[in-house]
Amino acid sequence: MEDYRIPPGMEAVEKLEDFIVVNRLTANTRIPSERNLCEMWGVSRSTLRQAVDTLVSWGVLYRVKESGVYVAVPKKNRNIVGVDSMMGELRQQGIFFTKKIISARTIEATRQISRKLKIPLGQKVYEYIRIRKADYVPSILETTYIDCKQYPGLDEYYTEKTSLNYIFKNIYHKKQNSGEEHISVTYASENEAKMFEIEQGTPLFFTSGVVEDDKRVPIIYYKQLLRSDQFKFVSMINKE
Amino acid sequence: MEDYRIPPGMEAVEKLEDFIVVNRLTANTRIPSERNLCEMWGVSRSTLRQAVDTLVSWGVLYRVKESGVYVAVPKKNRNIVGVDSMMGELRQQGIFFTKKIISARTIEATRQISRKLKIPLGQKVYEYIRIRKADYVPSILETTYIDCKQYPGLDEYYTEKTSLNYIFKNIYHKKQNSGEEHISVTYASENEAKMFEIEQGTPLFFTSGVVEDDKRVPIIYYKQLLRSDQFKFVSMINKE
Repeated sequence: MEDYRIPPGMEAVEKLEDFIVVNRLTANTRIPSERNLCEMWGVSRSTLRQAVDTLVSWGVLYRVKESGVYVAVPKKNRNIVGVDSMMGELRQQGIFFTKKIISARTIEATRQISRKLKIPLGQKVYEYIRIRKADYVPSILETTYIDCKQYPGLDEYYTEKTSLNYIFKNIYHKKQNSGEEHISVTYASENEAKMFEIEQGTPLFFTSGVVEDDKRVPIIYYKQLLRSDQFKFVSMINKE
Repeated sequence: MEDYRIPPGMEAVEKLEDFIVVNRLTANTRIPSERNLCEMWGVSRSTLRQAVDTLVSWGVLYRVKESGVYVAVPKKNRNIVGVDSMMGELRQQGIFFTKKIISARTIEATRQISRKLKIPLGQKVYEYIRIRKADYVPSILETTYIDCKQYPGLDEYYTEKTSLNYIFKNIYHKKQNSGEEHISVTYASENEAKMFEIEQGTPLFFTSGVVEDDKRVPIIYYKQLLRSDQFKFVSMINKE
């Protein structure tokens, strides 16, 4: 066995987590002072501080200078693969979303886009860059590519007031049926940091994927950047 | 529309990506000098540098001081939900994995464990902490909890030379059938940084999940930390 001990702080971490659950502490509630918690649980100051650090790094708690430690807003569950309306599911979690189209144009498919959408190199595609705010905070930066030939007139139907999902379903009668998504971690560039109102170099989720119709023809190729302090991904599988 | 321009570097990013694909550059190959690429593509030095920066942050390229820019080892695909043997799938990608059990003990189920495994608080569970190396690099730190009552004698069957999958299938005749997994981003603590041989504070994937049998009874509750520079998650959905 290697020289690895379970950090003594782990039990304090569980105690703290349970404390939040049992006392039904809601977001932005201050937890008792370190001194009070140490006395209550008979743990050392440094153990408790380590436990708080851990929960801060997990996004469960956050610190306010010269004030104390508070319960964080829970991370939003981002269900895997944009086959169903991701936004619909997030809305069910009680989150208020707004979106803004920050760029809409027609470009020629690059090698990557043509590969993903299975269309010839250079064929015209719509490109939408959208930013989504969750409860007024910029949270998702999304770039979407759609084949112009397959979806003529899309640019006339699609505005900030409607959704691509709605248009595919009701105008083109396309069912989004299958998909593939990759999730990795990247770092905020200067531009992205400005947009997300975070520091440059902060880790972000980077996802990219293709959504296909019921004949496995690609409909959408998308890339997303998501704030990693605001989202976690959830997947469920049932083989039956 | 907000004041957001598509960064001019994006086209150079695509050019660079295509360059790697078209020339079939393999991992650890040096790409031509910035000056050569600038001349070839007629882009400015600063645009090219920005593009290289982007691909470095995506893990596609890496820099070696006073030497140049190299093609990185591609990220390993970690399929979502440990219902099938994740390790089996990673091995199919040609990765050589070793595992080490760094702690094996029996503990009383904490509130969290009892909730996840649906067993009474305080009931005995096996806890395994394992580190997995991918091609000799420490890549995954995994903590696993299994109910002792449901799997008596597991600690005698399970060693570094076998796999939990094998034991569940062949000794307990349990089929791993459904599951749920959460994926978020955390930061390496001092301990974890040491184990992964990375700097403290580096972002890591943090996943946790439950694997159930065909009657939806939990078999395993697990937590994993994965190096975010080595893994990306892949999910595929087909609704048919």
